[in-house]
Amino acid sequence: MKEIITLAHGAGGKAMESLIQQVFVPAFHGVEHAVLEDQARIPMRLLAEHGDRLAFTTDSYVVDPIFFPGGDIGMLAVNGTINDLAVGGAMPLYMSCAMVLEEGLPIEILQRVVNSMVEAANAAQVSIVTGDTKVVPRGQCDKLYINTTGIGVINSGVQISSQRACKGDVIIVNGSVGDHGAAIVSARTDLKLEASIQSDTQSLSELVQIMLRVCPDIHCMRDATRGGVAAVLNELADASRCTMYVDEKSIPVSPDVRGVCEILGFDPLYLANEGKLIAIVPESAAELVLCAMRQHPSGAGSVVIGQVVDQQGSAVVMETQFGAKRVINRLVGEQLPRIC
Amino acid sequence: MKEIITLAHGAGGKAMESLIQQVFVPAFHGVEHAVLEDQARIPMRLLAEHGDRLAFTTDSYVVDPIFFPGGDIGMLAVNGTINDLAVGGAMPLYMSCAMVLEEGLPIEILQRVVNSMVEAANAAQVSIVTGDTKVVPRGQCDKLYINTTGIGVINSGVQISSQRACKGDVIIVNGSVGDHGAAIVSARTDLKLEASIQSDTQSLSELVQIMLRVCPDIHCMRDATRGGVAAVLNELADASRCTMYVDEKSIPVSPDVRGVCEILGFDPLYLANEGKLIAIVPESAAELVLCAMRQHPSGAGSVVIGQVVDQQGSAVVMETQFGAKRVINRLVGEQLPRIC
Repeated sequence: MKEIITLAHGAGGKAMESLIQQVFVPAFHGVEHAVLEDQARIPMRLLAEHGDRLAFTTDSYVVDPIFFPGGDIGMLAVNGTINDLAVGGAMPLYMSCAMVLEEGLPIEILQRVVNSMVEAANAAQVSIVTGDTKVVPRGQCDKLYINTTGIGVINSGVQISSQRACKGDVIIVNGSVGDHGAAIVSARTDLKLEASIQSDTQSLSELVQIMLRVCPDIHCMRDATRGGVAAVLNELADASRCTMYVDEKSIPVSPDVRGVCEILGFDPLYLANEGKLIAIVPESAAELVLCAMRQHPSGAGSVVIGQVVDQQGSAVVMETQFGAKRVINRLVGEQLPRIC
Repeated sequence: MKEIITLAHGAGGKAMESLIQQVFVPAFHGVEHAVLEDQARIPMRLLAEHGDRLAFTTDSYVVDPIFFPGGDIGMLAVNGTINDLAVGGAMPLYMSCAMVLEEGLPIEILQRVVNSMVEAANAAQVSIVTGDTKVVPRGQCDKLYINTTGIGVINSGVQISSQRACKGDVIIVNGSVGDHGAAIVSARTDLKLEASIQSDTQSLSELVQIMLRVCPDIHCMRDATRGGVAAVLNELADASRCTMYVDEKSIPVSPDVRGVCEILGFDPLYLANEGKLIAIVPESAAELVLCAMRQHPSGAGSVVIGQVVDQQGSAVVMETQFGAKRVINRLVGEQLPRIC
């Protein structure tokens, strides 16, 4: 008989204890102590080795479907929070994992998701050190939602901020855009595509550390998740009060993603990514950063897509493939709920 | 027209930005920076002032109903995570807040919940410094679920652990038990009670700091949430491999809670609390700790309920009101889903 999650698994009694011992303790290295104490304890000296500021970020993941080409909700939940830490210049170190499970979820599904989390955390050398499990009655969530909250440390030399884009700065992306959004929409619809589009979910932690090694003075950096590259560029232009030029031709979009966008009327600039970052760097360092990025698998497709052209206004202007100029705004909403 | 949450509010575009600016930024002090940077940044020296270990804990809150006598899901989400930090001996300092919202939720409801969170956080001098918002389609969660993840710091002298209960140690509770569970069950059922039972949701941070001041060597401490006092005593007896005696007569239960339990067949020992802790302290310090506790409003009802009688086995034995002895086990599950 297939074991499923029951309400008892969230009730603080023996059933919950046995779920934790069966699924979470063997998976999450070091979490055993946190289960005993209901908190993880981290010696401050282990943190201080890495820098002078703690970075702290949280995200809940509600992606639908929970398994999609190129990844699943568990991988996304680990990589997404790692990336939020990394693009701020932090070395991601520790993570919590809180799950809301729907009654009736097969434990085998939970186990697969947890295995993905472990794999992603190990790959990025991040430890999942504390957690929580809640179960809600059937129909009160959709399979499972995951919250991960991450702790990292920022080295004293690093001052990445959304407000530091300066005239002349160069805008870099680390590869093709829109893959995650296109993968999710293809998985949801009945598009018969020749090749399945894979989500780009990946940790950007190593790539960012490499970038910071060659250029500690990266001005801005952001991962382009919900709202896509268009949202990130607009947020940075707003926060830095500057005008950016972007060259449409230079923005990498894979033929498959372009195909899906043409069929469904999406613009790849607005599609979510889960392993792409936008970096804004001083012009003098751009070549060096780009070279370093291209030597890492997560940065092999890195290119310059634009430049900060004016230290006033707050606009993103794109030169289209046909030589026209148009302003890239943020959308009000998005056509894709539960994208991450 | 009543404003409601739409899918656009979770999509990373302008609608989400305006929800964050309208509801979260004015409420959560300092969160503006985290919104800009997608992470909070905390100078390590501010942490190091408080001790040598970082405590890190997470909890998701799915309580039903979201408003109940004595509190609401927002207050619970802040106090619950504060208490998980506090009972480990940590000074709670920072917190994240991640919300999963159901499409159609009135924004006014969200605002009330956020206001409660602010009030609870201010009362405990904890800052909510970073957050996340997801929206799921109608019917894919029930109104709203909240994750809070907390950071605190443990002073170097403090060594609270579930494994330190010793023969002779005295077991203390800070007041009447079962109030939260009874309040939730009364709110859900059609019991016509003379007086409404109030949840005991409260921060235990100040109380714990006072206790640590008079007795830095508290051996074990745990808040008695899901599974109630019975679950906590069993967990501590297991982890410390010891036998505890508990005197039923000494366990404070309010007449109203006792009444609800008699009507519905619950045992108050298994009902959830949200502002009650179990402390296990050296016999020599018990009187001092008790005196200190009683001087704080959260500890006014503090009493000794038992003692560790043997450094072997792992059992909780209760002397009943009629002089008989019975073993108190943990339940397998619980009759009350979504209690917190």
